[in-house]
Amino acid sequence: MLRVAIAGASGYTGFELVRLLGRHPQAELKAITSRALAGQRLDAAYPALKRHCDLVFQLPEPDLLASEADLVFTALPHQAAMDIVPALLDRGLKVVDLSADYRFRDAGVYAEWYQAHKTPELLSEAVYGLPELHRDAIRKARLVGNPGCYPTSAILASAPVLAKGLIDPKTLIVDSKSGVSGAGRGASLGVHFCEVNEGFKAYKVAEHRHTPEIEQELSGVAGEAVRVTFTPHLVPMTRGILSTTYASLRDGVSHSDVDEAYRSFYREARFVRLCGTGELPVTLHVRGSNYCDIGWKVDERTRRLIVVSVIDNLTRGASGQAVCNMNLMSGLPEETGLDEAPWQP
Amino acid sequence: MLRVAIAGASGYTGFELVRLLGRHPQAELKAITSRALAGQRLDAAYPALKRHCDLVFQLPEPDLLASEADLVFTALPHQAAMDIVPALLDRGLKVVDLSADYRFRDAGVYAEWYQAHKTPELLSEAVYGLPELHRDAIRKARLVGNPGCYPTSAILASAPVLAKGLIDPKTLIVDSKSGVSGAGRGASLGVHFCEVNEGFKAYKVAEHRHTPEIEQELSGVAGEAVRVTFTPHLVPMTRGILSTTYASLRDGVSHSDVDEAYRSFYREARFVRLCGTGELPVTLHVRGSNYCDIGWKVDERTRRLIVVSVIDNLTRGASGQAVCNMNLMSGLPEETGLDEAPWQP
Amino acid sequence: MLRVAIAGASGYTGFELVRLLGRHPQAELKAITSRALAGQRLDAAYPALKRHCDLVFQLPEPDLLASEADLVFTALPHQAAMDIVPALLDRGLKVVDLSADYRFRDAGVYAEWYQAHKTPELLSEAVYGLPELHRDAIRKARLVGNPGCYPTSAILASAPVLAKGLIDPKTLIVDSKSGVSGAGRGASLGVHFCEVNEGFKAYKVAEHRHTPEIEQELSGVAGEAVRVTFTPHLVPMTRGILSTTYASLRDGVSHSDVDEAYRSFYREARFVRLCGTGELPVTLHVRGSNYCDIGWKVDERTRRLIVVSVIDNLTRGASGQAVCNMNLMSGLPEETGLDEAPWQP
Amino acid sequence: MLRVAIAGASGYTGFELVRLLGRHPQAELKAITSRALAGQRLDAAYPALKRHCDLVFQLPEPDLLASEADLVFTALPHQAAMDIVPALLDRGLKVVDLSADYRFRDAGVYAEWYQAHKTPELLSEAVYGLPELHRDAIRKARLVGNPGCYPTSAILASAPVLAKGLIDPKTLIVDSKSGVSGAGRGASLGVHFCEVNEGFKAYKVAEHRHTPEIEQELSGVAGEAVRVTFTPHLVPMTRGILSTTYASLRDGVSHSDVDEAYRSFYREARFVRLCGTGELPVTLHVRGSNYCDIGWKVDERTRRLIVVSVIDNLTRGASGQAVCNMNLMSGLPEETGLDEAPWQP
Repeated sequence: MLRVAIAGASGYTGFELVRLLGRHPQAELKAITSRALAGQRLDAAYPALKRHCDLVFQLPEPDLLASEADLVFTALPHQAAMDIVPALLDRGLKVVDLSADYRFRDAGVYAEWYQAHKTPELLSEAVYGLPELHRDAIRKARLVGNPGCYPTSAILASAPVLAKGLIDPKTLIVDSKSGVSGAGRGASLGVHFCEVNEGFKAYKVAEHRHTPEIEQELSGVAGEAVRVTFTPHLVPMTRGILSTTYASLRDGVSHSDVDEAYRSFYREARFVRLCGTGELPVTLHVRGSNYCDIGWKVDERTRRLIVVSVIDNLTRGASGQAVCNMNLMSGLPEETGLDEAPWQP
Repeated sequence: MLRVAIAGASGYTGFELVRLLGRHPQAELKAITSRALAGQRLDAAYPALKRHCDLVFQLPEPDLLASEADLVFTALPHQAAMDIVPALLDRGLKVVDLSADYRFRDAGVYAEWYQAHKTPELLSEAVYGLPELHRDAIRKARLVGNPGCYPTSAILASAPVLAKGLIDPKTLIVDSKSGVSGAGRGASLGVHFCEVNEGFKAYKVAEHRHTPEIEQELSGVAGEAVRVTFTPHLVPMTRGILSTTYASLRDGVSHSDVDEAYRSFYREARFVRLCGTGELPVTLHVRGSNYCDIGWKVDERTRRLIVVSVIDNLTRGASGQAVCNMNLMSGLPEETGLDEAPWQP
Repeated sequence: MLRVAIAGASGYTGFELVRLLGRHPQAELKAITSRALAGQRLDAAYPALKRHCDLVFQLPEPDLLASEADLVFTALPHQAAMDIVPALLDRGLKVVDLSADYRFRDAGVYAEWYQAHKTPELLSEAVYGLPELHRDAIRKARLVGNPGCYPTSAILASAPVLAKGLIDPKTLIVDSKSGVSGAGRGASLGVHFCEVNEGFKAYKVAEHRHTPEIEQELSGVAGEAVRVTFTPHLVPMTRGILSTTYASLRDGVSHSDVDEAYRSFYREARFVRLCGTGELPVTLHVRGSNYCDIGWKVDERTRRLIVVSVIDNLTRGASGQAVCNMNLMSGLPEETGLDEAPWQP
Repeated sequence: MLRVAIAGASGYTGFELVRLLGRHPQAELKAITSRALAGQRLDAAYPALKRHCDLVFQLPEPDLLASEADLVFTALPHQAAMDIVPALLDRGLKVVDLSADYRFRDAGVYAEWYQAHKTPELLSEAVYGLPELHRDAIRKARLVGNPGCYPTSAILASAPVLAKGLIDPKTLIVDSKSGVSGAGRGASLGVHFCEVNEGFKAYKVAEHRHTPEIEQELSGVAGEAVRVTFTPHLVPMTRGILSTTYASLRDGVSHSDVDEAYRSFYREARFVRLCGTGELPVTLHVRGSNYCDIGWKVDERTRRLIVVSVIDNLTRGASGQAVCNMNLMSGLPEETGLDEAPWQP
């Protein structure tokens, strides 16, 4: 039985980890930390968890975590993660970091979009935790940078056609729409029910920090530098991301070439489901699951490919993918504890 | 491994049964039926189920069900249920019926609120499937009438204080609020998003068919005839029922008498969670689970007890409770397959 | 042209006042105040108002308000209202106060539910601003205590049958459900979209401060002391209150007696609409308007009357009613500026 | 006083016309028609309208309409509109048609996306009712084809930069998101609350009939053939469209060139509001109004312009714009009856 801990368990992704670990047959949650809630029971913050978890929040001490766990999920804000991750690694722990701190290969890119990196030497070791692209490396990793929610939906949408060279990378546009839980559990006017309800909007247009993450991974797939225009939007719903990706097809590429690229790229993918012809994915259909559902269409009039991908931002976009990475790092089948049907309706 | 089938699996309660059975370690779903969708795959109607169920809807033939299953969930409209249940019992099957047809002990009451009963002789045998009240009888039953969603929330709310004689039964009022999934999956103006959104309303005031069901069970608990005023409302949300129950305390009854009544009545209850002092339950906190969360308050100014109870109408109010009944009828621990934490947020 | 000002215009009721005054043919909004936003333009806080209001928030100085306006709406928290209202009256201004500070006739009741009153001598002069009960007094008032949102829906629901002695006042129960805008525009976990969505709940059971306000007015109507049990709930929607009121009919009272009581009581009421037989009101149907829609049903089985009343909490429950009171205090027809159809859908 | 009628008044756009005409100082609604509801009162279908309209639905007879009205809004399905519009024109009526039947200049385009046109000879006369592009022609028209909801948001977003030649027309992509009221009031599984809630999705990708309408108008503005990729999505909210438009800037075009293009193009526009630098529009802020709010950003990394435009789909996207066209056709100021602030929240 794998012993795990969560550093920073008070937010929505922390709760989702608790939920998923609670049904995992091979992992046991041994400790949770929160500076703000240290000393309180988890189920006082989340009454939904009564009878499911009697853990008490502790302070995030590396020695304590090392004594309780073999693997730690760090669900902390960026910067706070890199303050503790080295100490955890030093004590022999494996780490799945849900912040942005270990997603980048290039400390310069991180510095440009976030701030100076404190442990750049770890970046070459850390593995970007998207199993469809890096499954083997994740299996051997002791540090995984768990992907952002938007990048997960965006990278999975265009990797197959970029890998085959079917689209022109310079034309890539990702228009994403996210439920409100992606903004976290903190209170602000922006997540006030009366401001969100009937209040669809775009935000951080052309400046969202998930942009370089998408570019890093798609560049790797394409074998050339990829730049994308990325626009996030806020949807009046709790869970779910839908990304609509646009790209121009290269000359001579047919609809069946595209179909074939998706089918072959995801032939073995446990958590990617491809829509049939004429079908399109819906956020409701992946809720609570680790699936990414993908549909696509060729617009022959403009010779563009339109790809629609959906995930649950808290599950596949954060905690479910983190558990999947834990499974791979621990020699377990990747679907362990993640094999239930989505919630409906 | 218990072999089960669902007759009438195309609606929301049918889907919820599929979801819950999919994670049940001791039961296997072998057949599903639907007159309207016979010949189609379940995951064509519910794309969320892709990779989780490859069953095809069949016609509801008793012989077929008997060859495939040991126990059948009948998730059919009332009247349609009693057309098939006798044939299922004749073939040696156990039945959990989710319609109203086998919830009543008195065919006259059923006739008054629904229509004439076709198999009144089965009513004395059928057991009302609320485990907190009838656990032992359910264990021995071959036919269980699975409770309605509103009655589940209402009966659990006042049974403890009625059983102890702490309230005056003549003063019972149940004001219930339900999410839209309780109306089923059929399309109508009443469930149109634009009519429901911002459109809170009461309906079937003083004439809802769940009234006599509440009265039957509470009369049994109280040991005297109980009549309630019951008012259902529609809430702009998908899942959840919250019932607010009002009753006058008998003279001399104290707040601690009430507390003690709830604590002792539900001491062993696996799926009832009692709120602490000053806490009140929230529909969000039981979503996707079989819990009924209950809180209460004494209004000393008016000497009334106010009880607030919440359930997920599709889980505890229908399919989760049905699985719990299946467990009991099959000699399994009642929580088998039902022990996961609620969804949040 | 009537010159008006709003003291405390930064919240939802403040905005609603601006919206309603913007279409009022006889009133002109001359000044708005906010300590927090002093110096900022209103349309910076509310971009929806661009091109509709170029006012700048000022500090709430009585002399300034007296120089700009003839009548002031005080949309301040309780306590803050009574800090400024006397100074406004001293300067010859009329005041419609939207806080609780001038709703009570008895300073002792106010002290019991709020805190000690600083200007008890004004309570005998202030008029409770529910036009259906106090129209003539409002016309002559210089200070109106604008009713709370819940009390408006509750008082209008049972006044007719209490006035006629058709129900037993000791049996009155008011079960109310409100949209989230009633909680104001301040950010907190309780109004976070992800906590409200699918999260129906009761709160402040048997201790909400609107209770004594309901009792004061219904006692006046009934001619005897009335005590009610009042339970507020939070609905996942932005606007609207629906109150379900229960009371036992006195012996011999018939359904037509009840019908007649409502028809006669509201014969002249410009802003009360009575449902026809078999109809029930819906919050959606009064959105943005000053209407209170009322429907009722007699439950002959239990001899109880169930009344369902709906209002828009921001319009009839606050700012619309305040404008109506302004009209009456200024000699204008009460519907001036309030005569548009509700929003739909 | 202008006398007007609505042919096909039973849907959401019909209701919205009634609402807007109810507050119009210069127009009077004299007749409404509906085949399905003939003989019923409007306020039976829309209880919100009680006390605001006592009209009864009539059969859509041209002679009747001609005797009652000077101008008719035809809010009928496409095809049904062209069955009646010629007869109305023959009787000397002016017509604002809300269907697609008179939006196209080229009967071939209409035939390709809809079906054969029955009155192609009227297409050269009909004016596309977008005042910002065709104000003068609308003033002289007797037949206006009122724009579709998506096209209104899309055309207004890129007209200024196309007119100035700042973007490459071949790169235009419009990613639009609409509230559910755009689907009309008919009941279907697709608008069921439980399917829409948490169920964001794309639909009719690269095949929606609003595509050629956008192209016709933008081609006119650009002075060359424009082809767009257009993707509509369904948002879990009632009202509102947000369109995100992407296009590549031509070499040398600066951010201030873009700013200047918008400022000058819309200098006189009564119903377009431009966001300030760093601001972006929100659907909530235009609700119930005729505004189109527009914000934009240049992504210097990719040299793309991203424009975000929002409207209320029922008001600016249908009935508000129709009333604006009526005003222009009748010699009234275009804002007559449309000058109120948006609803908030």
